[in-house]
Amino acid sequence: MARATAHPNHQLISSNDVQGTEVYGAEGNNIGEIDHLIIDKQTGRVAYAVMSFGGFMGLGHSHHPIPWSALTYDKSLGGFRTAITEKMLKDAPQFSDDSWQDRNWETQTHQYYRSRPYWENLNIS
Amino acid sequence: MARATAHPNHQLISSNDVQGTEVYGAEGNNIGEIDHLIIDKQTGRVAYAVMSFGGFMGLGHSHHPIPWSALTYDKSLGGFRTAITEKMLKDAPQFSDDSWQDRNWETQTHQYYRSRPYWENLNIS
Repeated sequence: MARATAHPNHQLISSNDVQGTEVYGAEGNNIGEIDHLIIDKQTGRVAYAVMSFGGFMGLGHSHHPIPWSALTYDKSLGGFRTAITEKMLKDAPQFSDDSWQDRNWETQTHQYYRSRPYWENLNIS
Repeated sequence: MARATAHPNHQLISSNDVQGTEVYGAEGNNIGEIDHLIIDKQTGRVAYAVMSFGGFMGLGHSHHPIPWSALTYDKSLGGFRTAITEKMLKDAPQFSDDSWQDRNWETQTHQYYRSRPYWENLNIS
């Protein structure tokens, strides 16, 4: 339900505003909202947004990790846009609590969503 | 009060666990906790942790932005360590709601805390 309104005209946003912010799918439809973020402690990068889908497409209320790079903030919408479709979500790589420690799952998931891995293209020593 | 326990032995952590996590100062003393994070939407990097100080050093209950790079997660503590001292906090650059849009304030703040700016050292096109 929330709309991210903090820091207009700027690229900084509060995690309080991200959490609960709506996500709109490829067809412009509301497909859920962001529940929380998964952060890489070492680099300080947001790795995943864990989305909450309330009864969307028969999934019941579920959580699903989406690469952060698959989301684009749309100021006019006050929410995030993504090219992810319902079918892609349905067929996404299976997820478990062990997935966070499984670089194979991470690579597979980023490839699946055609998203740039958060651990690449960083010159951080 | 919270201790960050998610994803042990891994570098990923949930924003739900970061928020509320204790921060320990240069002398190993508890200096406050993380209230929320400020994120760069474009790069997906955590820019600042906004710390909450409950009556610490006569400041009353206050919020204070700290560069994310000034914090190091300490698994054994279940919290973050920082080299920031009470005196540094007291003398930090003044902060207002406009500061988030003020790159001069951001530069000044990162220099003050001797922290690497979150907008540098990234090869993101």
